[in-house]
Amino acid sequence: MKYKITFIGSGNVATNLAHAFDSAGHTINQVVSRNEEHAKALASKFGAYYGISLSEIHNDSDFILICVNDEVYKEVIGQFPHGIKSIICHTSGPVRMDVLGDYATEYGVIYPLQSLTKDNVKSMLEVPVFIEWSSNNSKEKIRDLADSISNRVRDVNSDDRMKYHIAAVFANNFSNLMYVLAKDYLDSHELDFKNLLPIIEETALRLRQNNPRNVQTGPAKREDIAIVDKHLSMLSNIELKEIYKKLSHYIMTEL
Amino acid sequence: MKYKITFIGSGNVATNLAHAFDSAGHTINQVVSRNEEHAKALASKFGAYYGISLSEIHNDSDFILICVNDEVYKEVIGQFPHGIKSIICHTSGPVRMDVLGDYATEYGVIYPLQSLTKDNVKSMLEVPVFIEWSSNNSKEKIRDLADSISNRVRDVNSDDRMKYHIAAVFANNFSNLMYVLAKDYLDSHELDFKNLLPIIEETALRLRQNNPRNVQTGPAKREDIAIVDKHLSMLSNIELKEIYKKLSHYIMTEL
Repeated sequence: MKYKITFIGSGNVATNLAHAFDSAGHTINQVVSRNEEHAKALASKFGAYYGISLSEIHNDSDFILICVNDEVYKEVIGQFPHGIKSIICHTSGPVRMDVLGDYATEYGVIYPLQSLTKDNVKSMLEVPVFIEWSSNNSKEKIRDLADSISNRVRDVNSDDRMKYHIAAVFANNFSNLMYVLAKDYLDSHELDFKNLLPIIEETALRLRQNNPRNVQTGPAKREDIAIVDKHLSMLSNIELKEIYKKLSHYIMTEL
Repeated sequence: MKYKITFIGSGNVATNLAHAFDSAGHTINQVVSRNEEHAKALASKFGAYYGISLSEIHNDSDFILICVNDEVYKEVIGQFPHGIKSIICHTSGPVRMDVLGDYATEYGVIYPLQSLTKDNVKSMLEVPVFIEWSSNNSKEKIRDLADSISNRVRDVNSDDRMKYHIAAVFANNFSNLMYVLAKDYLDSHELDFKNLLPIIEETALRLRQNNPRNVQTGPAKREDIAIVDKHLSMLSNIELKEIYKKLSHYIMTEL
């Protein structure tokens, strides 16, 4: 089925989902965001209405999708007008579905497990989309909506969604931190981070075929203490040295 | 020019380089490795001789490439017969070129900055290959040989090569550890690590266009203490909790 959709938020998640749903044939009805410029910009791409306050929400959408930063969820949800008939879904990893219970009759979650940026809108086809629902009626529609943009829709409850979110912090936020540390270190010696791109990509893409435990390499894995000590002696940044030590110790003792 | 090449070692690096040099039209002359089975297997792919001891090295190769684990370099180099006329190159990230000085007249380094496995031989064309040389004569030939397999050959001295090696530990070994931690955590809750593959790949491939500092996301980056604390409360493994804390602290204070 084709739905009319209102977005609360005009950032990375809203932008990517709006493009995906528009491409799938749904109607982007309205974009409501405190940032008027962003709301207008996103709405204009789809010929949608825009607004800057939740009091302006039109009551004729099938879905209202909340796409705001995790830390302002409570604030935004608290401002929801009463009597909304749309199915209200949030799109956050760590926020429980129940927070919507006081403000909507039908509600749920549509959480795309991907790092999204509005500067680089990508296909959602292979993105795992975790859904949750408050009733059988919303279940069917939420699944239908999610299925229209992704081939990897999964039913995942709030508890398990939080666990995936923790795992994603390691797999995404912390691996990206490792790239930052590598780049900062090379920059400080006027060496070129671009030389690391092939090994970074290989390390990530290799997981399609391999368990990460089976492809762990490096001096710590080989328990090559001489090289580990040599490396530590060359790291002058105390914090960096501590991180190197802690991670190497984990590899040596647990892998 | 086309060269005759002897390999010392029959593991991941030797296998990948042998395929690359063979494809580039060079002759794989001999494979010498303590593991007779591996030496025979690799040599047989190229119609090469094999041997299990350094005393069996033929003296008619243009190059001898040492492709052994970093920790046995000294031992292997110490066993080199005198009077070798080939250019001897090692292929290690952290080993200094000078270690070859007592055993060869012409020597150098050919270090492919990539994580290589023999089960999955890949093209070396985009792999940065760092070279070093002991004299102008060897320089020309080493560059010629390296250029025949890679478009990204760079002159990098032993000091800077070690710095790249440290950076690669962060960018490869430690990022892979983050994938291990994510998988172990999900496995322990019977959740599916495959759902993280798209975000892992996106995080790595994004670096082609972006500085990793500019794409850092997550609760620590947003200083969302509530989520960080919630995550910590859900990690029962003490070591994992410590790693989460240390890396989040670094993100919060330094990024």
